[in-house]
Amino acid sequence: MPRLWQTTIDEHRRSVRGGILDSAWALAAERGPLSVTMSQVADAAGIGRATLYKYFPDVASVLVACHERHVAAHLEQLAQLRERGEGPGERLAAVFNAYARNVHHRERHGPPEMGALLHRDEHVAVAQRELLDLFRGLLLDAAQAGLVRTDVPPEQLATYCLHALGAAGSLPPGDAVRRLVEITLAGLRPSADGSGD
Amino acid sequence: MPRLWQTTIDEHRRSVRGGILDSAWALAAERGPLSVTMSQVADAAGIGRATLYKYFPDVASVLVACHERHVAAHLEQLAQLRERGEGPGERLAAVFNAYARNVHHRERHGPPEMGALLHRDEHVAVAQRELLDLFRGLLLDAAQAGLVRTDVPPEQLATYCLHALGAAGSLPPGDAVRRLVEITLAGLRPSADGSGD
Repeated sequence: MPRLWQTTIDEHRRSVRGGILDSAWALAAERGPLSVTMSQVADAAGIGRATLYKYFPDVASVLVACHERHVAAHLEQLAQLRERGEGPGERLAAVFNAYARNVHHRERHGPPEMGALLHRDEHVAVAQRELLDLFRGLLLDAAQAGLVRTDVPPEQLATYCLHALGAAGSLPPGDAVRRLVEITLAGLRPSADGSGD
Repeated sequence: MPRLWQTTIDEHRRSVRGGILDSAWALAAERGPLSVTMSQVADAAGIGRATLYKYFPDVASVLVACHERHVAAHLEQLAQLRERGEGPGERLAAVFNAYARNVHHRERHGPPEMGALLHRDEHVAVAQRELLDLFRGLLLDAAQAGLVRTDVPPEQLATYCLHALGAAGSLPPGDAVRRLVEITLAGLRPSADGSGD
């Protein structure tokens, strides 16, 4: 097959796949992921059911693929923020704020019950590890700059941050999420006298 | 039926039920909750299958009852700690330490995959609310004593604490859990200059 045709076919497949994911996610958000059917996804994406089955075997696979795409986009966004900030403190705050806003948005606007569906999916565990790695790197830099306590290993601090910022999903919109980031960062600071109270 | 007989029957039922829960929990911890069968539970509890079915319709109900018993015991323990501490700061630290140790123990020694099983169970949501109420009360006292920032509503601080302490489940045993509590508490302190940085 000529090279150009292959490129066109690949692009076409990517575009159809993207349309399937968009439609499925919208349906899941509207009706809950457990009541979406393959026929509804095909209709919403403007393709036949037979075509849909060439891309995905079932609704769960479509939704897992949606979630993978979201997660990859969020990780990419966070990785870019890490490159941009002025110093280690600003970078940490920028990444934490973006992550907390993502969590907040996901809980409030994402499909409910996705947790049950994704609970054991491997890509969630992989994304979690990537996020922890990203946090750990930022915390290491901040610790070296004297902004973060050094008596706790950075991976344990990263675990604390990941959990603490997860509270964003249960907070009201607006200032609460920004203040959560502030509180989480305050927990990391080296204590003034180094001895606690 | 004479009163005494009824008491004896009630006690007998409670004791059989307790034995069922103990056996089922041990089996779930050993094999994973999703591979436990009613016959195994009956055998381990030393009763017939027919008797077991008079108490519980299926394994999921047994395990949910186990979990309810655990959760109730933990909440009771935390409520007692709240009554005992010297001042609001000590009480907060004592309750947080006990909660973090519970989370740590549950993740390391509790049956895996219980999350999937319990995810939608109503008693988990109720326990979560009770825990948040307990935390909120402690935080309100600590805020009034000037130990905790007052620019964030206590229920939002409680949400932060619940999530942050949840990190205990992913930390190694030993000092890490104690330090997590320290970090979480540090996040709550009123800032020295009241303006952030």
